[in-house]
Amino acid sequence: MVSDTMIKELTGIVGKENILTEKVERICYSYDASNQLYLPDIVLFPSSAKEISLILKLANLNNFPVTPRGAGSGITGGSLPIGGGVVISLERMNRILSVDENNMMAIVEPGVINGDLQAKVAGKGLFYPPDPSSMKFCTIGGNIAECAGGPRAVKYGVTRDYVLGLEVVLPSGEIINTGVGTMKGVVGYDLTRLLIGSEGTLGIVTKASLRLIPMPEAFKTMLVVFKDISDAAGSVCKITRLRITPTTIELIDRDSIRCVEDNLNTGIGDEADAVLLIELDGSREEVDRHIASLKDLFLKNNAVDVKVASGKRELKALWRLRGAISASLLKIKPNKMNEDVVVPRSRIPELITGVKSIAAKKGLTIPCFGHAGDGNIHVNVLYDALDVDETNQAKEAVESIFKLTIELGGTISGEHGVGIAKAPYISMELSQAAIDLMKEIKKTFDPKGILNPGKIFIN
Amino acid sequence: MVSDTMIKELTGIVGKENILTEKVERICYSYDASNQLYLPDIVLFPSSAKEISLILKLANLNNFPVTPRGAGSGITGGSLPIGGGVVISLERMNRILSVDENNMMAIVEPGVINGDLQAKVAGKGLFYPPDPSSMKFCTIGGNIAECAGGPRAVKYGVTRDYVLGLEVVLPSGEIINTGVGTMKGVVGYDLTRLLIGSEGTLGIVTKASLRLIPMPEAFKTMLVVFKDISDAAGSVCKITRLRITPTTIELIDRDSIRCVEDNLNTGIGDEADAVLLIELDGSREEVDRHIASLKDLFLKNNAVDVKVASGKRELKALWRLRGAISASLLKIKPNKMNEDVVVPRSRIPELITGVKSIAAKKGLTIPCFGHAGDGNIHVNVLYDALDVDETNQAKEAVESIFKLTIELGGTISGEHGVGIAKAPYISMELSQAAIDLMKEIKKTFDPKGILNPGKIFIN
Repeated sequence: MVSDTMIKELTGIVGKENILTEKVERICYSYDASNQLYLPDIVLFPSSAKEISLILKLANLNNFPVTPRGAGSGITGGSLPIGGGVVISLERMNRILSVDENNMMAIVEPGVINGDLQAKVAGKGLFYPPDPSSMKFCTIGGNIAECAGGPRAVKYGVTRDYVLGLEVVLPSGEIINTGVGTMKGVVGYDLTRLLIGSEGTLGIVTKASLRLIPMPEAFKTMLVVFKDISDAAGSVCKITRLRITPTTIELIDRDSIRCVEDNLNTGIGDEADAVLLIELDGSREEVDRHIASLKDLFLKNNAVDVKVASGKRELKALWRLRGAISASLLKIKPNKMNEDVVVPRSRIPELITGVKSIAAKKGLTIPCFGHAGDGNIHVNVLYDALDVDETNQAKEAVESIFKLTIELGGTISGEHGVGIAKAPYISMELSQAAIDLMKEIKKTFDPKGILNPGKIFIN
Repeated sequence: MVSDTMIKELTGIVGKENILTEKVERICYSYDASNQLYLPDIVLFPSSAKEISLILKLANLNNFPVTPRGAGSGITGGSLPIGGGVVISLERMNRILSVDENNMMAIVEPGVINGDLQAKVAGKGLFYPPDPSSMKFCTIGGNIAECAGGPRAVKYGVTRDYVLGLEVVLPSGEIINTGVGTMKGVVGYDLTRLLIGSEGTLGIVTKASLRLIPMPEAFKTMLVVFKDISDAAGSVCKITRLRITPTTIELIDRDSIRCVEDNLNTGIGDEADAVLLIELDGSREEVDRHIASLKDLFLKNNAVDVKVASGKRELKALWRLRGAISASLLKIKPNKMNEDVVVPRSRIPELITGVKSIAAKKGLTIPCFGHAGDGNIHVNVLYDALDVDETNQAKEAVESIFKLTIELGGTISGEHGVGIAKAPYISMELSQAAIDLMKEIKKTFDPKGILNPGKIFIN
């Protein structure tokens, strides 16, 4: 518990209108998309790096934990205050400070919504590619903390690839700048990328310089229906063999299609075992040429239907299908373990077959969908948390899926992070020596362990 | 000095044919492109991570320094054994272990020559973009240590953007794997990128998984001649305003042109104050369209000549011009301080004007050329090392250029690293808190300071 004296001091830092202490208010900051609940003792809404610095200095002096929070859309519990203490919500620090067309850069505060940034720069003919599915509400600060990806990562990479420099408050309260305000820079160790994906355990980002690129001339999306998911999965590698890099290559399996089909009139027939949702961008001429080559490829690989959308409304309809899946799965079962494993593209067919066999063995439904283009499949183990036996089966299924993923040369998290959800499993992927080194790095940054404790590593 | 007992133990690790102890042989491993000489006591040629691990364990036990070395083409002294001890040359570990077309990945040992990898993957229709000017002899291990860039960074980014995972021997001798063998991965801290650009001070890379992309369909290069360098520099930003991203945008000033003009028949007229060398790639149609738009832009901005080359021989001739500059400058003076400052693209005209004014004030010739597209200009302060006064003027000029660069929002090194050459200057760019944190990280990896000591940080 944070003492009354502390509350007084913290109020002094952020002002009394920027602190929550009532339980009913604190509950709003106790959850994230991992569906767990940890109540903070206090929620603070600082407006500057300076205020955050003072809060962290106080935390070090008085040994209370501090957990930074963006929009709470994380899936692995990264923003949950598992030991109580102070939650720092970055929602007031939500300004786009500059969009520089000459240098194709933006400088933003951490609370800026990803989609707002995208819209703002699009107005100037510029493009910020990282597009997590939660982009309408997730924040750039959270994206940086998790190194968020999204469908477009196939062609454009992830958050890491668009951050040039950061202003960060270290756990000690020290404010530093990392990286550069230019396209290149190699002076000293790459603290910028060490902080990206560190899940708010090494520092609190208070400002970010982001790289932008020119908005492509044309976008088209194709929906390709397959009667057999192994034809769909097998086609993914063949796309790369054509030396075509689509913007997105999303795979959606039968279970996922069924969940959204009732509510959306997608026009996907009953015979569909899987669909690929492929977006291409570039010059109009190139996009058309690539669409033609891909259509040819898919028909040769037993696709039963290929639709191409280019108008805004048509595109939106196709992507609504993809966007609706995650939530719709809860129609089958009230709970899900949403894993985002990655395997080399060529191993996707083996992953899908393996997951379906694990599902059959455990008597569970495990819909698979996601970013097949970079081998990143969202595997959703559905269960009812009130059913103890089913919950155990689900947990065992997750472990088997992780084991399979590692055997296929993959990783247990492509873009959602470790948080608390995957912390028990990291030793399946990382050696003890690597984990020990990471823990030493954490200790170097945060000797007292006050910043976002209990995440990534167990103990 | 390394003792006779040590020599015996080290011989036991690598075999007697893989150790050099004679002075005449060691001299070959005592220099790099920074034009300084530090003699190692011993040079070793290990063939595996295991052997390197044993060497580092021995170094820790017996407190001798170990300096890893690629091809010795570095410009800031990163591979120089400034305190003597052991040099580990990675030249025997030079195998391309796999090129996986389906997953567009290559796995290589650190001693692989950059150009050899490029040629090998090009044979399969794939592209490894990072292209330091030394690509014909520099190694991937060295590229990773320095986070090397090159002309193509404008469109394709730097080494960091193509490394997925590493096998690394830590200073303790522990062998770990970092990163992933897939397109995405966020489990634990990003040790991969912390190691990239750490200049061989945090670990020795023994294997790297690299991302490849499809080889573009067409390449064309244009040479644009300007009578006034400020028109050339000013045009760079206007290119981005057209939403065109060339592969390279190289700027070459009058002094640099003059140096190569005598030996190469470039056909650049005497009136040229600067040229831009611009490469475009993509689909044939797009490249042609962009060439036309750019030609229009340059003529409007007072270009006096625009040549377009597309044939292999023509392309080679144009790029020979660029490749010859660095060495040719020594015709003017026997020594140079080759700095690779970066400023935001829009500030290039101010940088160039500022450098020329510093040159005039100091009575020096300071040719400028380089990667204007990402604001990374190679500023070459020419001097005669036997002339004490001129040497001092040159040193002062470098400091003034760094000061100007920082004032313009830039960084003092875009791709050459800090090494020993820039170590005295890093505090111009980094805060003491950031430097202290980096030194703590170094201590975490290498408590005894045996790996590549004396680099990046003074003390």
